[in-house]
Amino acid sequence: MNKPDFRRWQNRIGAARGDRKVDLLLLGGKVVNVFNGTIEETSVAIYDGRVVGFGDYDADEKYDLKGRYLAPGLIEGHIHIESSKLTPSRFAEIVVPHGTSTVIADPHEIANVWGIAGIKYMIECSRELPLDIFYMLPSCVPATSMETAGAVLTANDLNTLLEDESILGIGEVMNFPGAYSGDYDILAKIALSAGDKPIDGHAPGLTGKNLSAYMIAGPSTDHECLELDEAVEKLSCGMRIMIREGSTAHNLDTLLPLINEQTERRCMFVTDDKRPGDLLDEGHLDYILRRAVSKGLDPITAVRMVTLNTAEAFGLTGRGGISPGWRADLVLFEDLQSFKVNEVWHGGKLVARDGTILTEVAECKAEYYSGRLNVPELEPDAILVEDRQCRIRVIGIMPEQIVTKALSVYMPSADGFLTSDIDNDIIKLVVVDRHSGKGNIGIGFVQGFGIRRGAIGSTVAHDSHNIIVTGVDDNSIIAAISHLVKIGGGQVVTDGNQIKATLSLPIAGLMSDKSVTEVVSFEEELIKGARINGCKLKDPFMVLSFLALPVIPELKLTDRGLVDVVKFQPVSLYEKE
Amino acid sequence: MNKPDFRRWQNRIGAARGDRKVDLLLLGGKVVNVFNGTIEETSVAIYDGRVVGFGDYDADEKYDLKGRYLAPGLIEGHIHIESSKLTPSRFAEIVVPHGTSTVIADPHEIANVWGIAGIKYMIECSRELPLDIFYMLPSCVPATSMETAGAVLTANDLNTLLEDESILGIGEVMNFPGAYSGDYDILAKIALSAGDKPIDGHAPGLTGKNLSAYMIAGPSTDHECLELDEAVEKLSCGMRIMIREGSTAHNLDTLLPLINEQTERRCMFVTDDKRPGDLLDEGHLDYILRRAVSKGLDPITAVRMVTLNTAEAFGLTGRGGISPGWRADLVLFEDLQSFKVNEVWHGGKLVARDGTILTEVAECKAEYYSGRLNVPELEPDAILVEDRQCRIRVIGIMPEQIVTKALSVYMPSADGFLTSDIDNDIIKLVVVDRHSGKGNIGIGFVQGFGIRRGAIGSTVAHDSHNIIVTGVDDNSIIAAISHLVKIGGGQVVTDGNQIKATLSLPIAGLMSDKSVTEVVSFEEELIKGARINGCKLKDPFMVLSFLALPVIPELKLTDRGLVDVVKFQPVSLYEKE
Repeated sequence: MNKPDFRRWQNRIGAARGDRKVDLLLLGGKVVNVFNGTIEETSVAIYDGRVVGFGDYDADEKYDLKGRYLAPGLIEGHIHIESSKLTPSRFAEIVVPHGTSTVIADPHEIANVWGIAGIKYMIECSRELPLDIFYMLPSCVPATSMETAGAVLTANDLNTLLEDESILGIGEVMNFPGAYSGDYDILAKIALSAGDKPIDGHAPGLTGKNLSAYMIAGPSTDHECLELDEAVEKLSCGMRIMIREGSTAHNLDTLLPLINEQTERRCMFVTDDKRPGDLLDEGHLDYILRRAVSKGLDPITAVRMVTLNTAEAFGLTGRGGISPGWRADLVLFEDLQSFKVNEVWHGGKLVARDGTILTEVAECKAEYYSGRLNVPELEPDAILVEDRQCRIRVIGIMPEQIVTKALSVYMPSADGFLTSDIDNDIIKLVVVDRHSGKGNIGIGFVQGFGIRRGAIGSTVAHDSHNIIVTGVDDNSIIAAISHLVKIGGGQVVTDGNQIKATLSLPIAGLMSDKSVTEVVSFEEELIKGARINGCKLKDPFMVLSFLALPVIPELKLTDRGLVDVVKFQPVSLYEKE
Repeated sequence: MNKPDFRRWQNRIGAARGDRKVDLLLLGGKVVNVFNGTIEETSVAIYDGRVVGFGDYDADEKYDLKGRYLAPGLIEGHIHIESSKLTPSRFAEIVVPHGTSTVIADPHEIANVWGIAGIKYMIECSRELPLDIFYMLPSCVPATSMETAGAVLTANDLNTLLEDESILGIGEVMNFPGAYSGDYDILAKIALSAGDKPIDGHAPGLTGKNLSAYMIAGPSTDHECLELDEAVEKLSCGMRIMIREGSTAHNLDTLLPLINEQTERRCMFVTDDKRPGDLLDEGHLDYILRRAVSKGLDPITAVRMVTLNTAEAFGLTGRGGISPGWRADLVLFEDLQSFKVNEVWHGGKLVARDGTILTEVAECKAEYYSGRLNVPELEPDAILVEDRQCRIRVIGIMPEQIVTKALSVYMPSADGFLTSDIDNDIIKLVVVDRHSGKGNIGIGFVQGFGIRRGAIGSTVAHDSHNIIVTGVDDNSIIAAISHLVKIGGGQVVTDGNQIKATLSLPIAGLMSDKSVTEVVSFEEELIKGARINGCKLKDPFMVLSFLALPVIPELKLTDRGLVDVVKFQPVSLYEKE
């Protein structure tokens, strides 16, 4: 136990009593009271980073809120910061002006690449920010044994981080069949929670007895409900439901009817994944608030779902409400319809105004790997695919979804090797192991990108984040792979040997060290390049990033080859084999 | 961290999946779902002490609930078990058949007598019961420095118990002026919570800036609200409100309007103190449920206030709802109006039916002091009071209240010593230090008992629990004191040298080792004896037990003499001094 600073504590108590001047008095506002569900016209006194009282106080600074709405700082309950392609610092720069004060993140993307060092990197980068970031320990690294990841994290590995004060609990237990089957390795990781730390669930579609079994394994939240019935059942069984509205998944409209006066306390809003462009265009939790309220949700209830409810779910004391002794994490909304954020205070300090961060946010000084991808040089014939005169299995993209179809197709060939079939929109797809140095390459074909020339590639490819490239010709594909290796990870558009657009992601091949506006501008160049190559998809890199994820049906490609996700086993490219 | 029993865990998971027979299937009932606020017709499967699933299961035993209401076992959020005069075992015997599964107790009565040994005794006696008892560490022993208690518990003393698994947090911070003034010794005890263990408050009438200061000191609950306004303010500031309906305080009717759909989650029902006769006649939390619902509260909301809300307030995971993996602590109500308890399961085991405990409850084997009170033999003239020919200060009893009035009276005398004034209902009151061995005796007079002969005495006298006796003549008083010393603590009615009725309380002079029916029968004899002596009060021993508590206005008597509680300082018996 850390010995508290009694003098400081006594000073805060004295400030609350009115015996010493407070630092700041926010007056003339309407306070969103999450405890009693009302709006109260009162002043809020702040001293030494905490709320210390209500009503009139002698203050160093008095600030008139002019009738606007003062709410507790918003709390994100579940997000993978890596999906923003931003470091924690740059992520803070963009979300803090949107009213976010606290984030509970699962660093499982970087953990799949850098292992424990990756988690430590995130923790290290999250110190001293105008945003408090807590982490859940990734429980499923790697996601499956059918791919090569950068790390295998056992319970013993995770245990080394358990006592870090930024670790709250165990991250989403994605291997839900393992959990509800009582798999020892999964349970050993869950056991780290010692029965009193929160354990996030991830159990899409799970119901009935298997859901009960999963809950006994430990998870007590779920953010994967796609259908209302599913959410209703999970909540009624005692799970806390995270209603997810992010860049990839949009569950708000479907799940909104879950929320009523009886169930609300068991519900939260989360984003899970938020792409840099969406952070810039939409905002963060403020976006969910305005959407939910526009759909008819009571505004105070909505606020509670990203403040008090989330704090309670994660046992975060002193956050999520405006209360004496609690952190002075506060957000000033212009109104409770638009949820336009005017000011944000973090620990009593004004950190953002009208969308602009006001405080210097230093980039993380933590050391990280040089960024070199561990890939041997490719031979020119490395990605040739022999024509065996039979139908092959082709991945069929579904519009706006991360599930795929398994197609069965005869492909054209040249010189005894299969070639892309541009007319039928089927092109080559390659996944290259970037972790082990063994140079594993998985090769397949994919239908639906619309690409008619060149290639697009990325080192963001869930969950192992190997190199994934799709393209019309081998030259373009190999050029993309080589470029990604050269820049230490990122995204690229090639046409033959030419690099048409690129974004460098030197941090684990997942994150840039640039600001959100710079990243978005590079992303726009990438999309433009893909369009020129003929690609018709709205966000081809997002689609690409899920094609190597062998836990989402039906057919996926890893560095070890094709995976029939329905049968959960490797499968040959060739149907006759 | 304790290594979990993986085999057992896996078996529970398997039982949930339906792969192994469950122990018990409760079918045909209506399940009170505290998560979604509905009544659900489903079966509940139990295996190895836990709820493992809903719906149909192959079971060793199937039990038909016949349409009755299955609710989570009830949780008492704040009680002093000692007030029941029962040991934890005997307390369990009476409350378990009323549906109580978990109790959060503050052992501050015994702590004032036996110190840390007393708390350890309670913990030790609470093992292996059909009731889970958790303890809060008493934060205010002794209550004041104006009396002699059996112990002084410092933060260092309390720290020795902090890691015991039955300790949940810091007990009610009754020295609220000390807390809101930032008193170091108080803060040092609160600091043991390390910012994440719950801290109970006790702040009657506290409001505004002092309330804020008190909250910054740490307490996050309050059970002392006497007025609705007070409760409304405390809740709006972020405190959780315990609505108290026990033997001494009856706040339910006044505070019921506090509860609405927005505030309910921040409210609990507690008893604080429950006398043995009331436990027998009324029940425990089931009594509050039936009263609250009869006053118009929604029954599911009422149930939630003694289950999920309390569990959440104290961070008790796996309790307070019917959920896979949570404890199979269940209560079967005949209906949700009478809340008549039919069956009670504790950890999956049927422990009570129709008011009768079904399991053997062993008496505690823990060693405790022999029970000898530390009082030197009294001289016959030990309680003589010199007549100084002036008005004296007399304690005036207020009907049905624990506050008193300070009266100013000329008393009769004989042989130069003041005597009781039976015609004016003013008799002698004596408090004898039973802890230090120094033989301190405080002597005063009290108006309002109606006693016309003999004396009544007790070793239950909040908070230090010295010997307190009131009576007409010194013989009767000394006989009472001597008897109480002889039996090692208890309660007594004397008339001259004759013992008219007595109840032995060998455990710290507070608790019997008998069952509740035996204790109540002795109590009835005591009341009868007091009546014969002329006493008109409904419960003279309860009134007596608060006359030595120098934190309740206006005038009280400790072993050091009279205390003017308004001025919070000792005061002479004689007005002219």
